Formats: sequence, C-alpha cells, structure tokens
Amino acid sequence: MHQPPQLAGAHALWRARYETVRHRTLALAEPLSDEDCGAQSMPDASPVKWHLAHTTWFFETFILERMEPGFAPFHPAFRVLFNSYYNGVGEKHPRPQRGLLTRPSMAQVRAYRADVDRRIARLTDSVRDEEQARELGALLTLGLQHEQQHQELMLTDVKHLLAQNPLLPAYLEGALAPAEAAPLAWLVCEGGLVDIGHDGDGFSFDNELPRHRQYVAPYALASRLVSNGEYLAFIEAGGYDDPALWLAEGWDWVRANGLRHPLYWLRGEGAGEGRGAWREFTLHGAQPLDLARPVTHISLFEADAYAHWAGARLPTEGEWELAARAAEVETGCLHPAGVAPAHVGQGLAHMFGQCWQWTSSSYAPYPGYRAAPGALGEYNGKFMVNQYVLRGSSCATPAGHARASYRNFFPAGARWQFTGIRLAR
Amino acid sequence: MHQPPQLAGAHALWRARYETVRHRTLALAEPLSDEDCGAQSMPDASPVKWHLAHTTWFFETFILERMEPGFAPFHPAFRVLFNSYYNGVGEKHPRPQRGLLTRPSMAQVRAYRADVDRRIARLTDSVRDEEQARELGALLTLGLQHEQQHQELMLTDVKHLLAQNPLLPAYLEGALAPAEAAPLAWLVCEGGLVDIGHDGDGFSFDNELPRHRQYVAPYALASRLVSNGEYLAFIEAGGYDDPALWLAEGWDWVRANGLRHPLYWLRGEGAGEGRGAWREFTLHGAQPLDLARPVTHISLFEADAYAHWAGARLPTEGEWELAARAAEVETGCLHPAGVAPAHVGQGLAHMFGQCWQWTSSSYAPYPGYRAAPGALGEYNGKFMVNQYVLRGSSCATPAGHARASYRNFFPAGARWQFTGIRLAR
Amino acid sequence: MHQPPQLAGAHALWRARYETVRHRTLALAEPLSDEDCGAQSMPDASPVKWHLAHTTWFFETFILERMEPGFAPFHPAFRVLFNSYYNGVGEKHPRPQRGLLTRPSMAQVRAYRADVDRRIARLTDSVRDEEQARELGALLTLGLQHEQQHQELMLTDVKHLLAQNPLLPAYLEGALAPAEAAPLAWLVCEGGLVDIGHDGDGFSFDNELPRHRQYVAPYALASRLVSNGEYLAFIEAGGYDDPALWLAEGWDWVRANGLRHPLYWLRGEGAGEGRGAWREFTLHGAQPLDLARPVTHISLFEADAYAHWAGARLPTEGEWELAARAAEVETGCLHPAGVAPAHVGQGLAHMFGQCWQWTSSSYAPYPGYRAAPGALGEYNGKFMVNQYVLRGSSCATPAGHARASYRNFFPAGARWQFTGIRLAR
Amino acid sequence: MHQPPQLAGAHALWRARYETVRHRTLALAEPLSDEDCGAQSMPDASPVKWHLAHTTWFFETFILERMEPGFAPFHPAFRVLFNSYYNGVGEKHPRPQRGLLTRPSMAQVRAYRADVDRRIARLTDSVRDEEQARELGALLTLGLQHEQQHQELMLTDVKHLLAQNPLLPAYLEGALAPAEAAPLAWLVCEGGLVDIGHDGDGFSFDNELPRHRQYVAPYALASRLVSNGEYLAFIEAGGYDDPALWLAEGWDWVRANGLRHPLYWLRGEGAGEGRGAWREFTLHGAQPLDLARPVTHISLFEADAYAHWAGARLPTEGEWELAARAAEVETGCLHPAGVAPAHVGQGLAHMFGQCWQWTSSSYAPYPGYRAAPGALGEYNGKFMVNQYVLRGSSCATPAGHARASYRNFFPAGARWQFTGIRLAR
Repeated sequence: MHQPPQLAGAHALWRARYETVRHRTLALAEPLSDEDCGAQSMPDASPVKWHLAHTTWFFETFILERMEPGFAPFHPAFRVLFNSYYNGVGEKHPRPQRGLLTRPSMAQVRAYRADVDRRIARLTDSVRDEEQARELGALLTLGLQHEQQHQELMLTDVKHLLAQNPLLPAYLEGALAPAEAAPLAWLVCEGGLVDIGHDGDGFSFDNELPRHRQYVAPYALASRLVSNGEYLAFIEAGGYDDPALWLAEGWDWVRANGLRHPLYWLRGEGAGEGRGAWREFTLHGAQPLDLARPVTHISLFEADAYAHWAGARLPTEGEWELAARAAEVETGCLHPAGVAPAHVGQGLAHMFGQCWQWTSSSYAPYPGYRAAPGALGEYNGKFMVNQYVLRGSSCATPAGHARASYRNFFPAGARWQFTGIRLAR
Repeated sequence: MHQPPQLAGAHALWRARYETVRHRTLALAEPLSDEDCGAQSMPDASPVKWHLAHTTWFFETFILERMEPGFAPFHPAFRVLFNSYYNGVGEKHPRPQRGLLTRPSMAQVRAYRADVDRRIARLTDSVRDEEQARELGALLTLGLQHEQQHQELMLTDVKHLLAQNPLLPAYLEGALAPAEAAPLAWLVCEGGLVDIGHDGDGFSFDNELPRHRQYVAPYALASRLVSNGEYLAFIEAGGYDDPALWLAEGWDWVRANGLRHPLYWLRGEGAGEGRGAWREFTLHGAQPLDLARPVTHISLFEADAYAHWAGARLPTEGEWELAARAAEVETGCLHPAGVAPAHVGQGLAHMFGQCWQWTSSSYAPYPGYRAAPGALGEYNGKFMVNQYVLRGSSCATPAGHARASYRNFFPAGARWQFTGIRLAR
Repeated sequence: MHQPPQLAGAHALWRARYETVRHRTLALAEPLSDEDCGAQSMPDASPVKWHLAHTTWFFETFILERMEPGFAPFHPAFRVLFNSYYNGVGEKHPRPQRGLLTRPSMAQVRAYRADVDRRIARLTDSVRDEEQARELGALLTLGLQHEQQHQELMLTDVKHLLAQNPLLPAYLEGALAPAEAAPLAWLVCEGGLVDIGHDGDGFSFDNELPRHRQYVAPYALASRLVSNGEYLAFIEAGGYDDPALWLAEGWDWVRANGLRHPLYWLRGEGAGEGRGAWREFTLHGAQPLDLARPVTHISLFEADAYAHWAGARLPTEGEWELAARAAEVETGCLHPAGVAPAHVGQGLAHMFGQCWQWTSSSYAPYPGYRAAPGALGEYNGKFMVNQYVLRGSSCATPAGHARASYRNFFPAGARWQFTGIRLAR
Repeated sequence: MHQPPQLAGAHALWRARYETVRHRTLALAEPLSDEDCGAQSMPDASPVKWHLAHTTWFFETFILERMEPGFAPFHPAFRVLFNSYYNGVGEKHPRPQRGLLTRPSMAQVRAYRADVDRRIARLTDSVRDEEQARELGALLTLGLQHEQQHQELMLTDVKHLLAQNPLLPAYLEGALAPAEAAPLAWLVCEGGLVDIGHDGDGFSFDNELPRHRQYVAPYALASRLVSNGEYLAFIEAGGYDDPALWLAEGWDWVRANGLRHPLYWLRGEGAGEGRGAWREFTLHGAQPLDLARPVTHISLFEADAYAHWAGARLPTEGEWELAARAAEVETGCLHPAGVAPAHVGQGLAHMFGQCWQWTSSSYAPYPGYRAAPGALGEYNGKFMVNQYVLRGSSCATPAGHARASYRNFFPAGARWQFTGIRLAR
C-alpha cells in the first residue's frame, strides 16, 4: 500500500531534518577520543557517550516503543542506563555514576544509534494514517529539539571535563577570533499590557505556553552584554570582597568556594601578573582573555552582584522577551502590543548566539500551564522551583534552536553553561 | 527646656507601644527555664535567650548608637555576639553556635534589656527636634516590628527544641480547643489590572514597596485552608510515594529525609495504629490530631504536591493579596480596582491568624524596589533568591503585626514555621 | 536482723567512699550555672548535666535494677536518655543531641542523684549475704571508678564549651601557678622479658588484664614531658608546614583543619605579635603561655610529628608501664622482673598528674582478654580499634584514680583531653 | 669500554626480570578497552591507565632522574600527574580526580612505558661502576616490587569498577573452578621468645625490618580460611543485626552503610530467594556463590565480628608469621626458634594465594625501624596509623611476590581487596 502524496512529502522533510540533527551530534563527538567520551567531571555534567545514548533512548522509548509494530528494545538494560529523570519510564542509573559505564563501549553506542536511526526511518516510511502521522511528526520534532539541547550540553560538559585536566587540552584547533568592542547604550521600552509566551504555529516546549497577558512597567535594556573588560573592572574594584553587593546566599557561595573570578579564567603564572596575564580556558584551549568579548560562565549570583555594582539590575524574562520581539519586528516577523519598536528594537545586539542571559525571574509555570500527560510531562514542569530563567541562546546553541519565547533555566550557582549578563534598569 | 506638646503626645504613644511589645517578649519567655532559653536545636533556629538579646541589640545599634549623646555600649562583645546578619555592622558570631553562649547568662541578658529600655525611654523623652523625632519614630517602629517578628520565631524555635526532647514537654498548659470543620468553597475573582503592594500611611517593610501595577488573570481561591483530615487523605492515598505529584527537588528532599507526614505528626505506638492514633506535637505538648484544624508545618514541596494531587495549585502572591483586600472591602477598609468584592470577599476564612500560606511566587523585589541605605538595607533585599513568599499570618503572629501586603518568606524545604496550604485554581 | 560485723565494716567503708566521690562530682559543677551545665559543644563532649545524670544512671541500672527489691526506675525515660552506649541495656538518646535535653532540669537531675544515693545507701545497709556483698562491693567500686572517669570528662568538656565562647569565661578564679623548668634527661631501661598488666588485689578495669608476658627491647625514656617552650620551637621551625614530619593521615588532618598550634593556644592580637604574645585558654580563663609547663591538648598526630622532629619517638605502652613500675620500686611498691630500677626509676617526673601521655600502641586486647558478660562487657572491649593508648594521668584526673597499668585511649586526632608528649628512643 | 663479566651477568638477569614484570602489567590490561582503563570508581581505586603510568613514573623519577646522564623527562607534566603521594617529589594531581585524565591517552601512556623501558635498558647496559651497579640493582628491584603491588591493585580496582556497572561485565572469560571443602582443624603452637621480621638476603620492604625479638604466648591457628558457607551461616544467624558481636566503630559502619553481606555478594532476584540464590561478582562476572571457597572482600570489622561469633579471634601478625615459618620448615627453608614444627606446620592451608588475612595487629613500626632517606622514605612509614596488617597473599598477588614476613595493610573498613579470615584462639 502506498502513502498518500502529502504524507510522503512530510516524511521526506522529517527524514531530512532527522538525519541532519542526528548527524551533527556525531560530528560534535568527532574531535574526541573514546576515553574523552566516557568521563564525567561532576554530577551535573554527563559523559559525551551518555549524551549519544540518551538522545537515542529518547527516540526508542517515546517513539519506537509506542509506535513500532513488534517493538523489541536494542538492549534491555539501556532502558535504565540511559533514562535521565523520567520516573514514569521506571528506574534510572544514578546520575553521578554515569562516568563509570565503560560498557557499553562507544562502538556499541554508535551501533545503538545506527539501529534506532534505521528503525525510525522504517517507521516514518510506513506511516499511512494521518492521525498517526501527526503524532509521529510531533514526537520526532520533540526528539530532535531534545537532541539539540543535548548538543549544547555535550559542548559545555566536555569543556568542563577538559578544564579539569592540567594539560588544558583543546577541543578545537585554532584560536578564537577577536571580538569587537561596542559602546553600551540603553534602549527604552514603554512596556504596558502585553502578551508573553509562544505564539504562532512553530514548535515550542510546553513551558513557553500558554501565551498570556502581563503588565510590564517602562524599562530600559542594555544594548549589548557585559564584556570581560567591564567584569574585570568589577573584580579589580573589589567586587568579590564586598558583601554589600551580593545576595546573602551568593555571598555564602562565594566564600564557601573561595571564588575570585568567572569559572574558566586563569591567572597567568610567573613574574608579571598584570592585567594582561589573565587567560581564559575555552574550547580552543587556554587563550588570552579578550576584554571585548561578553563575559561568560557566570552564575546568577555573580550577574546580580555585578548589576548591583553597576547601578543596574537584571531584566525580568517578560522584559527580555518583549524587547526580543521588538527587535524581530524590525525584521518583519511580529508586531507585539504596547511596544514602540523604534526605541527598543534599534541597536539591540547579542540577543542570540553569544551567551544565555540570566533574568531575575524564577522559573515558574505560566498562568494556565499544563504539563503533557504521561512520562513526557516530566520534561519541564517538575523543575519549576529554585531555578532561574535564562533567555536568548549561546555560541553553543544549534542553529535554528533559539527563539524569543525560549525559556532556559539553571540554579543560581550554575556556571558551566555559556551564561552572561545583560543589564536592565 | 520643655518638649513641644505635639512631640510629648507622640512620645507618650511611642513609649506605650514600646513597653507593650517589649514586655510581651519577656512574657513569652516566662514558661521557660533558663536552660530552655539557652539551647539551639538546629542552625535555622535560635535560642530564646539569643532572641531576647538580639532584639535589644537592634535598638542599641540602630537607635542608641546613632542618637544617644555619649553612647557607650552595654558590653563591647555584644556587638558581635548578637549581630544576626548585618555585614555593615561588622563581624558576627557564627549562627550554628548560638546555643554555646552559656554566657552572658539569662540574668545578664535581662539586665541588658532593662538597661537599653531605660536609655531608649530617656532618649525618647529628650528629643526636641522634629526631624530627629521623625527619625526616632521611624526607627522605633522598625525596631518594634522587628521584635514582633522575633516573637513569632521564639515560639517556632522553642517548639522545635521541645519536639527534639523524648519527654515531649509542653510550653503551655491545657489542651488545644477543637477546631470547627467547614466545607471548602471556591471563591471567584475576575482579576484584571490591579495595584499590588503596600499603600496608605501605616508601617510596612521595604519589601512591600513600591505599590505597583500587575495584571492578574481570573482565578478562584479556596475559602479556607486545607485541613489535617484532607492532608491525611493525601497521605493515605500514597502521596509520599508517588514522584509524579512532586517537584523533582521536592521528591529528592522527601527521599533523602525519609518523610511520610508533616513535621510534628507522631504515629501512636502500641497495638492499634489506626487513623485515630495520629498525634501532633504542639505548644501544648502531644495532642490527638484534630482532623478539622488546618494542616501546618508543611514545606512548599508538600504544599505543591498536595495541590497537584487535589487538582489545584498554589496561588500567586498577587492573587492572595487581591483577595485579602477584597475581604477587607467588606469591612470597609479598602477598595481595590478590578475586583468584584461580592465574589471573593464573601466567605474567605483563615486569611490571618491560622497559618502562613505558601504562594507559588518566588521572593523577588517589586519593580522599582530600593533597599534602605546603610546596614538597615540588609533587612530584606539580600534574601531575595531561592525563597518563596508566604502570605497571611499564623497563630504565633503578634496581634496587629499582619496586613494584606505583608511578605513572609522561607526556603521551599522549611517546615518549622506555622505554614499551611490555601489552594487556588 | 543484724549484719555480721565484718560486713558492717566493709559497708561503712563503701559508704564513705561512695559519698566522697559522689559529692566531689557535685562540687565540680558548683562554679557553673544551670545554663553552663546544659550545653554541648561537640558530639564528643557531653553537657555537665548529662554527666551528672549518666553516672547516676549507671548505679541505678547496674546495681539497683539488679539488686534492689521491688525496683522501680526514678523516671522511665531516663533509661534511654542517659544510656551512653550500652546496647545491652536498650535504646539510647543520640549522642550529638544531648545538649537539647533542657528537660529534665538541673534541679530534677539533682533530685535524681539524691534519690539514687538514698537507695544505694539503703541497699548497702541491707546486704546480709556474703556473696551478694561481694557482688555489690565490686559493682560499687566499678560505679565509682566510672564516675571518676566522668569527673575528668566534666572538666575537659566544660573547658571545651567555655573555649567556644568569645568572652572566654573562666571556670576557676585566680591564675595558674607558674611551672618550674627542668632539664630533660634520658633514662635507660634494659627491658627484657617482663610482665605487663594489672597485678595485685586492687581494682582495675578489664582492659588492664590479664597480666601477661612481653619482650621489651632496651630503650630510653625522657625524664619529663615536652614543654610549651619546646613545642613552640617546633612551631617556629615550621613544624606545621613540613609534610615530611607527619604521618600521612596526620598531614591531611592538619591541612583539612588549618591547624598551626595546640588546641587552646591563642595568638595575642594587636601590634606586638612576638613570642610573648601567645596565650592559652585554661580553666582559669586565658592566661599567658607558660613556656615551662608541659604542652597539652595535643593530638597523637602532633605528638608523633614533634617526636619525629626531635629525633625521637613515642614510647610503647609496655615501655611506659615498665618505667612507671620501676619508679614505683623506688618508693617501695613493686618489684618487676627484668628491670634495673637504678636506671629508669631515677629522676622520672610527670608520670602522673600532669598530662596523659600518648603512646605508639594502638588500643588492643591483651592476650587472653575476656570482656565481662552482659551489658557491662561493653565497657571497654568494643572500642579496641582505631584508638591509641595514653598512659599516666592528668591534672584533671581524680586523686587515687591513676595507676601504672591504667589504659586510657582516644582516637589519633583527639585534642580536648589533657594530652601531652613523653619522648622515647 | 666493556662491562666486567660479573656485572654483565647481573645485568642480563635484571633485564630479564624487568621485562617479565613490565610485560605482565601490560598483559593484565589486555582484556580491557581504553574506556575501561580510564575510569575511576572511587577515590581509593585508580584507573588502570593511571597504574600503567604511575609505575613507569616510579622508574623515571627514582632511577632515570638520578642516574641517567642528561636526563630529560618524557613529559614535564607527568611528574605531577602520576605522583601518587611523594611529597618529597613535589606537587601531585588530586587522587579523586585521576579518572578525569582522559589525556594523556592510553596510546601515549603505552609510548611512555616503551620510552622508559628503552632508557632503563640503556642505563642498565651502561653501568660500569660496582657501587653504581649496586644502587641500580636495589632501585630496579624496588621498582619491580612496587609494580607488582600495582598489578594486584589493577585487578582489585578494575573489579570494583566493573561491579558498579549494572551489566556486570566479566574481566575474564570462563567460570571459576569449584573449590574443595576441607574440615577446619586447630593447629597448636607453643610460642615463646621468637624472632619476627625479614631475615636472609632476599628483598624486603623497609616495614619488614628490623628483625626483632617478640614473646608469643601459646596459641592455636585455624588450618584454613573461613569459607563462604561458614560466613553465610553467620549471616543467617543474624550476624549483621547483633551489635554485641561488633566493635563499636564496626557497628556504626554497618548501620551507616546498610550492610548485610560481603562486598560483591548479590542476592538473586525473582521468586526463589533461597540459599542457592546467592551469587558473587567475580573477575569472571557474576557466578553462583561457591560455599566451599574462602570468603573474601571482607572488612576487618566483619572479620572481627565473625571471629567473635565463632568463639575465636583474629591472630596477631606475630602469630601468623611464626606459623608461616613453621610451615616453611617442612619444605626445608627455615628453622625458627621456639617453634615445634610438628604441630603448626602440619596441615596449614591457604596461607598464600587465596586471600590476604586480617590480623588484629595495627600497622606500626617494628622496634628500631628506620625509613629510607629522601622521597623513597615515604613508601611505608607515613602510613603507620589507623591501619591493620594483613598477612599472606591473594589470588591476585603476582607469583614470587609473597613471603612470610610481608606486611600488607589497609584501614579497618576496606573491602575491595581480596581479604579473608583466618581464625586463632
């Protein structure tokens, strides 16, 4: 029996997108040895091999197990080994022990990927029913978005791992291109009663929904992210020594961990320890600190203290989203209520592709939020406590993954993501 | 030189209020021995003796030291011993070691209170200048509000201490009066664009300011708090065994601490372990669990899980405040915009005087918030991270201390306060 | 019915000894307030009130409960509250929470003591049977020896508590008398095949038995303890900075705790931080460091590192005991085999009454050791792992409690006892 | 210039032994993937790759750096990365982070081994001077003995790693051969004044010296090790539930870790959980528990509790060594004083090649012990605290590495070595 032509077209598109994303994941692991791929540098970070397997487990568990006729798992133990946090799926291997899984080997995990890819392709080709096609399309899209999230985590996790090695090995060859300095301007937004959250037909995670009304008071947003040079001035002014600048919990965190600078900054050894001697560990290995580049690997505590010191504050996620949409208006995408695009949209830089930007908003459900039924409902909602929302995207975010309504989130002390500071006031 | 008559009147009022509040603090310590007053049962709780001294230190440091001519401290070491968290004042004795301060003795701390009381009275009498009088009035008010907060903490901290003792000693004689059961009704509010935060001339803490505009979507609020009986049904339905009901961090917390019920519930020993065998440790000692009484000593995690199980949610602090004002309207106090008092105000019970009510709102600065200058600016703002707002007041809150805009706050796992659950949807 | 005269004489002696020891315990608590008596400064130390009650519990549990006709406990909960570690007796209150027992009050504990004292006296008077009298005599002796051990702990524990208080309160008035310096001499012992362990008819703990044969190679023992001045020279020579001097575990302990000097040494604040500025917290409060006095509050790790630095070593417990007996020979008490008293016994100072002396011997059962049956068998044997033997006695040891065969023991990192260093080589 | 013939002969012998030992180390890593070789399952265990590099570092640091003309390190960072604990050599990489060293790769570590092997061979060939030859010979011997110790650790560490993997992978193919049961007999030794410690010309570690006199009372030793079946009887009799059997610290350890059986015992899942359902994880993967085989992976705490339960005790190290020598007498090697070989030597089994045998002796220096000068002096002496001596050897000990005077040592709670129980009384 043949597929209806309209389904065949959709399937071709799905398969192309599937292959692109899945291939990129493997490409990210290319510069790494099997040994690199197995190690876990802290409980919050996972081995690259685990990412490769878990993203595959996601397709196997949420698509093949539901929809493949005569489904049998690739390996019965993988259901537990590569379950991240889905209680609805069953037991899971303890997170801090992912680095001890020297078996299955990288070769077996590659075989696992290839097998699931083949079966997903076969399933895609076989779908005839439109209802089923809709479900498959939604799940494939979710699985690929999920995999893109793990692509970013692979880079931040491997960066953290390599940074623990006194040899400071580089993931990528070559040096970082120098950044261009730009003056900081304050862009004004009148605010008002606006709609926040995902709209339109494209994909979004459930935490971006429902789109809802919010009142936003007038505010101003910095035209670009805080630079390494500006952050260095904060350090040199004694920023890490003055409790008056910090949230109480932030100050305890600074003292308990003996912190003096962002996560990957290195102080040059030897005689001349001047300003020029700062270096930064990057995916290209240790590099001279580029003062023009946005500061990154910053906790919310540090971002808040810096803002305090600079006489400003962090934006709320509503303020950030409103401005991001205003910027989109210029490129013709959207027209939000209550915004004068002439003011905010002009000159906004670094919204995407540099660093995730801490907001002052704790991660909470939007009014009327509903999690999906079943195990997939564990994707977002159950993490909505003691975390803070980050907006935008980073240099490690896959192309096409970011959008104005996207809500990333981490605890206030997290530093191993590409996180930076945009000021508001 | 005589005081102007209008100042004399104000001073008489201040002194009366000062004496009333200060006297009540001592009265709360009456049922306790000196030994009871010295012990500290956990780092979050302080000895009663420390509360008695710290509240006195507050007046000495922020009033006498600023305004008393020829100020000399009662004891130079007290500046450090009884500083709670004011970095601007200088060093402080480590919080977890407050229970080791067997000296100064209770007798010395009482003498300290008496000495500061005498000097405050003398200072009050001596103020001639209106500007100075305004400052003194504001600081006295703050000091007394601060002392009232510690009055509540004295009760929650001593309850926690006595609960650690296998003898289960009672702080108060007699039994708790039985509560009256009432059916739960849902009161509807249309919401709208409303003003939230303190208004009017009365005292408020800085965290209740500035009053600001907020959009609130239509919602319904439960007419009363969740009862022990309802919470027991949650337990008996397996509430503490089902991860699907819990925030991920809450589930980890339940498992790490092996929790099965609210903080002070006791399971009757012996043969018949039925439903009737539950008891609750109270300030009156162990008492049979009163199923009609509002459940208390509940963490945010438990409140959220219960709400989830009950098909409801926790209110935001805006929703709570809006309803509280609507209820006030009925009694003629206020008239908020966008509220139909006929709906919400009718039938709302337990808003004050029973249990603090967890909201889903993380503790954050209101738009335009500014902390006071100097050490007093450390009162509130620096705690605005990883805490959740509680609204209302409890059975331990001093009379006259509560108001609709009051923002209490604790971490999501705190249980030793009188905290309960009001549902919304 | 009358007691036989020989029993009546024994009973009078027991009662006199009982009253003397019990009275001294209360006398030790005299300088302390009820608040002082309730606090616990660390899990290893207990509140004075707990010592007062536990020593009473010992008589109640091991004598009255066994021998008193119609025994009923003073308070049923005390069986658990004041059980230290006897699993054979049943449950016990968690050790780290002894400081939270504000009830029973000191007054109740004094009443407990008085009640048990009365009942012990009555029991003593009533014993007619010789077999029973023998058992009672043995248990009374054990109970009083046990109480004397706790008398020493009361002093070391209260010293630790007061040292945590920034006011540095003194337990005793007046200043310490200055010590007299004496040159250090090396006393030689030929060793040989000797008998070690308790002999004779007097009381001993089970861990001093059985007396057994041991071969001791020739050795030399320092004539006196290491002084504060000598230990200060070790510090000033960088003793706390050189890992080559330390046991590996000792070095980790020094670094993890940031140690630079003995437990209660204080560095004088202010301008002139010379050698004279060292002070020491004592039971008389902070006192200038007396360079001639034996160094105390030293861990085994520090004692071993000092000995290493000084080109010597710590003695074994056999070497110590052999020398102690040789010294006794001079005073006519004993005549051990294989010792030339002329050498060792001459000039030995500080064997008793200054500081317990760390030996290099781990605490282990003597060959043929048998613990007592029942709960009393838990007194010693079950602690024979990862502890080191100390010999002699300290300034805090009750008169008459020490003897040459006495085996005290603590973990290698313990410092709050009066522990010092005698060198061997 | 040619070597003298007698040196040439010694060199050939050295090279043969060097190559044999070094080759065996690589052979032990053969069944493992590079991923297996990089992981570290706990701070006490090291990755196989680290063992391969550290043993090479030992030759490079203590031989090549001292004796090779124009020495240059293979890689300057390896001096720190592969230093285990020699403070005299300088900084060292933190032990718990050895598993994060994904670089250098296994390939680079193999190249490191090959390079050092080449240079050691060249150095050996080039030695002309007899004094230098003696030094080189001693250091080579020490280095090879050191490497043999790490060969055993490679097996115990990789067993621990594989045991963490839910797949329970086998290091070796095939099943374990069944053990033969033998009745337990008690062999009597009269003891006396004997000499303990290494004698003769062969190699020994410094901790086996000096040979010294000791008095040993008469004793009896079990003819073989305790079997799995006997230990199972202890478990089934409630051994892990009765505090009376345990040292106090052992009982705390049992409870804190929730222990019910030896380290690698597995309880069969499914319906029939009878005695036959016990399995044991071995280097051959999970195997049925062989009741006749000696119980292994036992802590000192467990060994002591078992002995207590069995009405016996653990031997002292002197008792063990005396018996081992008596057994050797039968094979004609030695003739110790004070032993009647007819009694002890007959029938002693399992002394070597099965499990290391816990003794009751804490690890302490022999009388007159002197550590070697310089960094090599850190080999043994600094660990002589809070550890217990194990005697004999295990199934993982390299052939020729064991001897009667050998002193292995581990903390009382260590279980991942092949440790077992021989009873004494």
